[in-house]
Amino acid sequence: MFGHVPGVGVGTLFEDRQALRAAGVHRPTQAGICGRADVGAESVVLNGGYVDDEDLGDVVVYTGAGGNDRQSGRQIADQTLARTNRALVENIRRGLPVRVVRGARGDHDPPASGYRYDGLYRVADYWAEAGRDGYRIWRFRLERLADDEARPDRVSEQPELFDTGRQPERRDMVVSRIVRDTAVTREVKQLYEFRCQVCGERVETPTGPYAEAAHVTPLGRPHDGPDTLANVLCLCPTHHAAFDLYAFAVADDLGLIGEPGRLRVHPEHPLDLSHLRGHRHRYEAAHDTE
Amino acid sequence: MFGHVPGVGVGTLFEDRQALRAAGVHRPTQAGICGRADVGAESVVLNGGYVDDEDLGDVVVYTGAGGNDRQSGRQIADQTLARTNRALVENIRRGLPVRVVRGARGDHDPPASGYRYDGLYRVADYWAEAGRDGYRIWRFRLERLADDEARPDRVSEQPELFDTGRQPERRDMVVSRIVRDTAVTREVKQLYEFRCQVCGERVETPTGPYAEAAHVTPLGRPHDGPDTLANVLCLCPTHHAAFDLYAFAVADDLGLIGEPGRLRVHPEHPLDLSHLRGHRHRYEAAHDTE
Repeated sequence: MFGHVPGVGVGTLFEDRQALRAAGVHRPTQAGICGRADVGAESVVLNGGYVDDEDLGDVVVYTGAGGNDRQSGRQIADQTLARTNRALVENIRRGLPVRVVRGARGDHDPPASGYRYDGLYRVADYWAEAGRDGYRIWRFRLERLADDEARPDRVSEQPELFDTGRQPERRDMVVSRIVRDTAVTREVKQLYEFRCQVCGERVETPTGPYAEAAHVTPLGRPHDGPDTLANVLCLCPTHHAAFDLYAFAVADDLGLIGEPGRLRVHPEHPLDLSHLRGHRHRYEAAHDTE
Repeated sequence: MFGHVPGVGVGTLFEDRQALRAAGVHRPTQAGICGRADVGAESVVLNGGYVDDEDLGDVVVYTGAGGNDRQSGRQIADQTLARTNRALVENIRRGLPVRVVRGARGDHDPPASGYRYDGLYRVADYWAEAGRDGYRIWRFRLERLADDEARPDRVSEQPELFDTGRQPERRDMVVSRIVRDTAVTREVKQLYEFRCQVCGERVETPTGPYAEAAHVTPLGRPHDGPDTLANVLCLCPTHHAAFDLYAFAVADDLGLIGEPGRLRVHPEHPLDLSHLRGHRHRYEAAHDTE
């Protein structure tokens, strides 16, 4: 199960790995990563076992599994991008959070004893490099998520704290586009084999194709669009942004408005034209600026 | 100035509009929106003045400016997508946050008197509709940001709280792709007129073109890439995702690796090939999975 474990708040302490397992926070009693290559990683434990780990608290540069001597924590062989390492890449591709648990032997603010659940992190990036011991290691950048903000209709962006002192200059900031991962969005991507319903493109990554699902009528207030196949499209990132920003709309005959072409709809996709109609009305208003 | 005003914490109270102005939190003393069509909106005030406003706290469905009778709060004319309304759309296109101030006459948790700075919100969506009084209004969905997480190297995603009770089923969640807005990313987009350096495409929205800037060597630990023109590309959303997910890389002669074509580089773009080389090494490792 991905995300918080119900009833287990951030900061909860556990006596040992068995207790973590019993609570469902981190299920393996030995492995540092709980995950499957084809599904993603649910949780990781940081407990000082890898010489290359770099724990900055809110950001963790996490070393993948394998090639590690348990006694010394040193690398004695190359790591491969398989199994649980591959699972962490799947979190990037699908945008899944990973639970982070810190143990008493960790480097950054460890609990006095046992283990502590430290909340959800985003897997932001991955790459291979030669570790301190000369072997190839896979590394993952984990970034802590705002736990207290865990709400279905919320998304965050992170402005920088730097202040230029001048007005009305814009300060540098981190922003983000919303991409939702739900059973329905996974289903629509499978149906189209990750191909964009507008341009037919798909992004081929080393660990599988990438596409985005767009809710036609947005989720949440005031639109309250449903999270159903009737209300979702499989799009490439560019057409997703273009759809959300009203660069194009779709007519009842599925012809595109605002650019050439038409929306391809799979026979098994029960798309509801009334949602496209609602988007089209918003599109028309956005273009009718006087 | 966008973002928090230095020294003004979330929850700070102000006696009146003059005090808000003096602090730089909301500069106009009458208008509900502080912004310029070509720059974006810095701040908005929610004070019960618009019959169509819907304040849910973390989410605000905000009514644009204009056509409003100040005495009654009723709409008496259509609104246009100009000036400060247009400014709020610019926040969406550029991913800028807006400061939200609540006044004592507001509908949701208003301060006992005067005004309260309630932190940063994201402008998530906009559309026109007929308001309660029958006139066209522009509406904006504002979503509260995680203030305590306002860090340059942090980004958040918001898992849903729903629990399916089954394992290892994935719970629905909201995830997001990172797009950064800095002086440098704005500069690179201007240089390429928002055209993708890989495919030449640009997204034409009703309020201007849209493109994304990609840092070649990522910002933050452990890569610590610089936020300079030497380290940034102007890409469409699809090629941005593809670049970050190692779907392609760029050779020293600017030919693409992993897909046909080459990277177009403007003569005034001092791109540093060593950054592309670092990305290429990460790309190669990601494809060399044994």
